[in-house]
Amino acid sequence: MSKTNSGNFFEDFSLGQVIRHATPRSLSAADQALYTALYGSRFALQSSDEFARSLGLPRAPLDDLLAFHVVFGKTVPDISLNAVANLGYAAGVFGAPVYPGDTLTTVSEVIGLKENSNGKTGNVYVRSRGSNQKGETVLDYVRWVMVRKREPGAPAPVPHIPDLPERVALEDLIVPSSLNFSNFDLGLAGAPHRWDDYEAGERIDHVDAMTIEEAEHQLATRLYQNTAKVHFNLHEAKGGRFGKRIVYGGHVISLARALSFNGLGNAVKLLAINGGAHTAPSFAGDTIYAWSEVLEKWALPGRDDAGALRLRTLAVKGKPAGDFPDKAADGGRDPAVVLDLDYTVLLPRAG
Amino acid sequence: MSKTNSGNFFEDFSLGQVIRHATPRSLSAADQALYTALYGSRFALQSSDEFARSLGLPRAPLDDLLAFHVVFGKTVPDISLNAVANLGYAAGVFGAPVYPGDTLTTVSEVIGLKENSNGKTGNVYVRSRGSNQKGETVLDYVRWVMVRKREPGAPAPVPHIPDLPERVALEDLIVPSSLNFSNFDLGLAGAPHRWDDYEAGERIDHVDAMTIEEAEHQLATRLYQNTAKVHFNLHEAKGGRFGKRIVYGGHVISLARALSFNGLGNAVKLLAINGGAHTAPSFAGDTIYAWSEVLEKWALPGRDDAGALRLRTLAVKGKPAGDFPDKAADGGRDPAVVLDLDYTVLLPRAG
Amino acid sequence: MSKTNSGNFFEDFSLGQVIRHATPRSLSAADQALYTALYGSRFALQSSDEFARSLGLPRAPLDDLLAFHVVFGKTVPDISLNAVANLGYAAGVFGAPVYPGDTLTTVSEVIGLKENSNGKTGNVYVRSRGSNQKGETVLDYVRWVMVRKREPGAPAPVPHIPDLPERVALEDLIVPSSLNFSNFDLGLAGAPHRWDDYEAGERIDHVDAMTIEEAEHQLATRLYQNTAKVHFNLHEAKGGRFGKRIVYGGHVISLARALSFNGLGNAVKLLAINGGAHTAPSFAGDTIYAWSEVLEKWALPGRDDAGALRLRTLAVKGKPAGDFPDKAADGGRDPAVVLDLDYTVLLPRAG
Repeated sequence: MSKTNSGNFFEDFSLGQVIRHATPRSLSAADQALYTALYGSRFALQSSDEFARSLGLPRAPLDDLLAFHVVFGKTVPDISLNAVANLGYAAGVFGAPVYPGDTLTTVSEVIGLKENSNGKTGNVYVRSRGSNQKGETVLDYVRWVMVRKREPGAPAPVPHIPDLPERVALEDLIVPSSLNFSNFDLGLAGAPHRWDDYEAGERIDHVDAMTIEEAEHQLATRLYQNTAKVHFNLHEAKGGRFGKRIVYGGHVISLARALSFNGLGNAVKLLAINGGAHTAPSFAGDTIYAWSEVLEKWALPGRDDAGALRLRTLAVKGKPAGDFPDKAADGGRDPAVVLDLDYTVLLPRAG
Repeated sequence: MSKTNSGNFFEDFSLGQVIRHATPRSLSAADQALYTALYGSRFALQSSDEFARSLGLPRAPLDDLLAFHVVFGKTVPDISLNAVANLGYAAGVFGAPVYPGDTLTTVSEVIGLKENSNGKTGNVYVRSRGSNQKGETVLDYVRWVMVRKREPGAPAPVPHIPDLPERVALEDLIVPSSLNFSNFDLGLAGAPHRWDDYEAGERIDHVDAMTIEEAEHQLATRLYQNTAKVHFNLHEAKGGRFGKRIVYGGHVISLARALSFNGLGNAVKLLAINGGAHTAPSFAGDTIYAWSEVLEKWALPGRDDAGALRLRTLAVKGKPAGDFPDKAADGGRDPAVVLDLDYTVLLPRAG
Repeated sequence: MSKTNSGNFFEDFSLGQVIRHATPRSLSAADQALYTALYGSRFALQSSDEFARSLGLPRAPLDDLLAFHVVFGKTVPDISLNAVANLGYAAGVFGAPVYPGDTLTTVSEVIGLKENSNGKTGNVYVRSRGSNQKGETVLDYVRWVMVRKREPGAPAPVPHIPDLPERVALEDLIVPSSLNFSNFDLGLAGAPHRWDDYEAGERIDHVDAMTIEEAEHQLATRLYQNTAKVHFNLHEAKGGRFGKRIVYGGHVISLARALSFNGLGNAVKLLAINGGAHTAPSFAGDTIYAWSEVLEKWALPGRDDAGALRLRTLAVKGKPAGDFPDKAADGGRDPAVVLDLDYTVLLPRAG
């Protein structure tokens, strides 16, 4: 019998199934340095141990999205090796900050299954929990993917679509208990605007842009030990749908987040990923712009040092985002939009 | 007189000569993170401090091949700056594991010399020993290279070809004394097959593939402080034999090893490099596939937790390895094969 | 009002103005590993903790130019986001060595202003001081840039051009007090020539060369959190003057410095940057060669273990530097020269 992993097909999943994913990963300051080199991130909390200490943390935590990519990467060999498409995210809550020296592992539960009407694929919903060596949850999130069936005629499970929240509710957000923004130094952080300065409905063009290179997205995706072959195999991709390698969607999320510094520089901490869609593929050579919209503005119970914003950030390829590309003339999606991410961030408050 | 290093030519070497190589190199978790980003390695022992501790080590050691590349890199300015070809490896034994914080240096001894019949080049055999700051040997291996003569007419030394073993013998393998695979967690390691499950003669197609980018092999080769100019100078390469930069052969070794995870995921430790040939050059844009053959299967005296496999791994460019490309129709080498490596690995045993 | 940083224009600067720059940055061994991967630097002091300890330091310091790039990067959003050109450097003095764990910040003072006769731009002179978390100066230097005016007709300040030294004087150089070259191991360092072996007027062709890739200069520039958009945005660059991204000038400085190892391998420590000009832009695909000239040779008062050399290193693109390209036939600059850097280094002395 073959000793290689051919991944799970739709009929291999069952509701309630728990999958303990492989390859625990110890992270270090090196992963953060590589993350900085890959995206140019400038959020002060992750950039400076001194800044982190001034806010009550023992040292600079790793970027929240770096933790996301590592937790996600572990699930790929079991969940999405035979995926046709990554359909969505929901209910993503960031827990304990991840520090250099932490070792992350991921466990997933299958929480939904539904065969597609073509009988060739089905949608699999998994809730994945990434935890550190102390057993603390660092990230808990749901994603669903369209997975091929091994045999088109195989019997389908009873369909079950989980009930997913539109967004993580205020009361479910986790703000690290020691984190205190009372001494938040706006000058060092590099942005003058606090939580108080943003309004729901406000739109921000992040102005800057970044062009993706093949070596960059490959380095990033391997750093996360994400093994999805569409990102790495040009020889096979040449005969495929696009004729080239596809950039890992998470690479675009991190690019958009790094670009959002220009306009959201004090949004130093991610609290939740409420939803998101990779609306079109990105390729090496694409230049990514980004813009954001403030969806909701939440005070945090019992805290006057910090507040939360629910944001929607769109990544746009090949054109500036100054006119906030979103819908196309026909009411559909502007084809230049490659990412539509709904997430919640923490900012300092005037108090 | 010129202050630049023009390297040694064939007539500069003498039998028994000892060369203490330059540039000691301290390694850190950063080198391992870069290694992961360059190859996507997923072997659990090197990926996780916790996993390493569960097997008796103080923390995750650096990848054995990372140590190999650093030890090798040091020898380049003295041994192979004027090399025409890297002809082979033999008798490579891995010793003390390399940990973050260790500083490596390399010393070589010339153990063989033989002028080629054209009178323009000669083969130089060196035994190189890489050691850490405590003086412990981390790697001891032999390689031989074809080196240009400074003056074609110069007198040749008495030819001496060292006696080299076909492979490192079982009794010469070094298993770190504290390493114990009794608690080896197959689930976390990501592969179900133990030593017991492999048989001599078995062939494994590793399925996955990786396309090489110029930036990637340059970053890797510089990380190892390997200065061979064929890897870096496009301006000069344009006028050369291939018209482009050649990828460092060790980069292909590491790619093949990372790909071999799919089928050999529990082969977490290299014990020996028995031999190897870079049978054809690789270039940026090449997609590397790999397959392996189990050559020998050895129980280890006095141990029931672990066993050794002698493997042959071939890297193949530009086509899948499912039909195990090896010999061409004319009995020669299949031209798609770029690496044929003979090495010995350690795996957990059912006990 | 826009929440994004549009940078300062010429009329936003005033003489004596002090600007505290954003984004403190903690550095680690990872930054040095990435620096090694980007340039292949082989200077023993920065490569080996053991070598550094043999010279009296607690461990290997980070590369002086890595510190330079980080200190420089912080100034970009405030000083040169609207710059037309980076005109020069002067009076750069390296102070306390930078170690893994240090956090760097930068503060600048405007020390000169002069509108250009076209009324559309002006030159801004800033003195920037980078310091560590203990408040120690790690680098103090002057640079001047040509910056756009927001409104061409806006009133100009009284012109003031600061008095800048031709080079940092011997008495202003800072040699770390614990650094002692008495036990300098030439063999491990990889170069036989001490301070005593160089003469003013001597020229050295560094022979080696390195071809730049887009992914490499982008990774480097982001590592330094340098946000100048000309390095990252191909979409916009396509419509610009060169039709492609411009390589950060500091990337070329680091390449030239790494190449200079071959001929100046014992010049392990930078003491000063006396001046420098990026005389032509570099692009991905360019192959960089380098040569150096010894401008001055200084004994250090009270020390017989070490001496200083004032060097001029030129980076040349697309052709070897064996004929020391400098002036063109018409007396102007050879167009292949992309960098002309005047700096001071520390070497071991025969004593």
